[in-house]
Amino acid sequence: MQALTLIKIGGNVIDDPEALAAFLQSYARVPGLKVLVHGGGKIASTIGIKLGIAPKMAQGRRITDEETLDVVTMVYAGLVNKRIVSKLQAEGVNALGLTGADGNIIPAAKRPVKTIDYGFAGDIEAGQIGSGPLSALLENGLFPVIAPITHDGKGQLLNTNADTIAAAVAESLSSRYAVTLVYCFEKKGVLKDPEDEESVIFAINPESYAELKEKGIVSKGMIPKLDNAFAALKGGVKQVHICRAADLEKIMEGEAYISTRLEPA
Amino acid sequence: MQALTLIKIGGNVIDDPEALAAFLQSYARVPGLKVLVHGGGKIASTIGIKLGIAPKMAQGRRITDEETLDVVTMVYAGLVNKRIVSKLQAEGVNALGLTGADGNIIPAAKRPVKTIDYGFAGDIEAGQIGSGPLSALLENGLFPVIAPITHDGKGQLLNTNADTIAAAVAESLSSRYAVTLVYCFEKKGVLKDPEDEESVIFAINPESYAELKEKGIVSKGMIPKLDNAFAALKGGVKQVHICRAADLEKIMEGEAYISTRLEPA
Repeated sequence: MQALTLIKIGGNVIDDPEALAAFLQSYARVPGLKVLVHGGGKIASTIGIKLGIAPKMAQGRRITDEETLDVVTMVYAGLVNKRIVSKLQAEGVNALGLTGADGNIIPAAKRPVKTIDYGFAGDIEAGQIGSGPLSALLENGLFPVIAPITHDGKGQLLNTNADTIAAAVAESLSSRYAVTLVYCFEKKGVLKDPEDEESVIFAINPESYAELKEKGIVSKGMIPKLDNAFAALKGGVKQVHICRAADLEKIMEGEAYISTRLEPA
Repeated sequence: MQALTLIKIGGNVIDDPEALAAFLQSYARVPGLKVLVHGGGKIASTIGIKLGIAPKMAQGRRITDEETLDVVTMVYAGLVNKRIVSKLQAEGVNALGLTGADGNIIPAAKRPVKTIDYGFAGDIEAGQIGSGPLSALLENGLFPVIAPITHDGKGQLLNTNADTIAAAVAESLSSRYAVTLVYCFEKKGVLKDPEDEESVIFAINPESYAELKEKGIVSKGMIPKLDNAFAALKGGVKQVHICRAADLEKIMEGEAYISTRLEPA
């Protein structure tokens, strides 16, 4: 199987133009087949507020009403995605930006209303994602850059968590490629002490993960990311790294003890 | 040579949700290979004004300062493009949205400053456009939907006229396909009398075009569209139609005398 690297870049890096430029240069140097999934950053909230649409949150997730959906579609699929694509083109990467609606690469379902109505939020399942269109792009020398917007196949766009997209797409591509999934963000990895940048936990397996959750060491925001990542490992992804965006090249070169590596059971 | 239809849909149709929905249903029924190029419509100006950015125009063209570029990138590549893609997906067309930066399908150059500084406006040449990435998409069953944003290859996005994009992409694809170029808008074609919807000029060739311009019958807004279209015919495009969006299916079925057909010399 041919190797493929799927990298997710977080919103905090996107919000920092210098960090983003440095990351994109590192990304350009990642050898072989690769796919980039990006988050949204704070620009959507900033623009939404200017347009008179206050961000609405519940349990750390955005509630996507119709107006908010328009804003995130504009910002994620338009501004952020095309800025990244044009910068990667300048770095010599033949990038091609997509949402889940394009080529139907990520079919989704509107989240059912239980206690909270999340509005136009899309839930996805790795099993529903075909690897055909992405493989076709990769085989033609095109490098997909995915914005966190999906669709229901009936004409409705949906807002979907970028971490979840990264894990699900990585899992679906693992039927054709030996996939390494890398979550890049502003921290060095999963920290034992959130105040101490050097307290990186170098390796986590499902057993130690259960322990970390029980002891409350893994923080709220990290749990969905890790849940997704372990599901991806179970689904066929070869390796998962959680690392600082600035360390991407070192990770790709195999440098150890600077990030968190997830291990299968 | 395989036949391909390249259709440009104008901003006035995009601004009218019902007309757009009807057009996309017609587009879905166009047989064979096809590419859609869309304009922007008034949403960019509306959103720009809400964000405190007044639209700036000179000689009928938008002046694109940095803030305006962000707005048109969001609206054209994000909101409008992804709405169209998701609606086409619902109609069974495996649409994939692109700007000129994606896959480097439309390299452009920032318009040189002469008497007017148009800002981040991109000029394109059909000869600079490769047909490779678009062909790769088409051969994989994906139908390109192009937003009127290009790039300079050095990381700068640029705003580019959608009529010009349609003609230049049609010309570049004519090296591989027998291309029919169709400009769809809200009128029945080029009108002898702009007040009389029934005064359609059924056929124009370069000679009669010169005469129409001389007599002032062809209006200002129409001249760049026709100049582009005649250049595309000269460059290898087989046929050009200018028609009402609502008449697209009839045109595709060969119905005559309901639109303007351009004829080579």
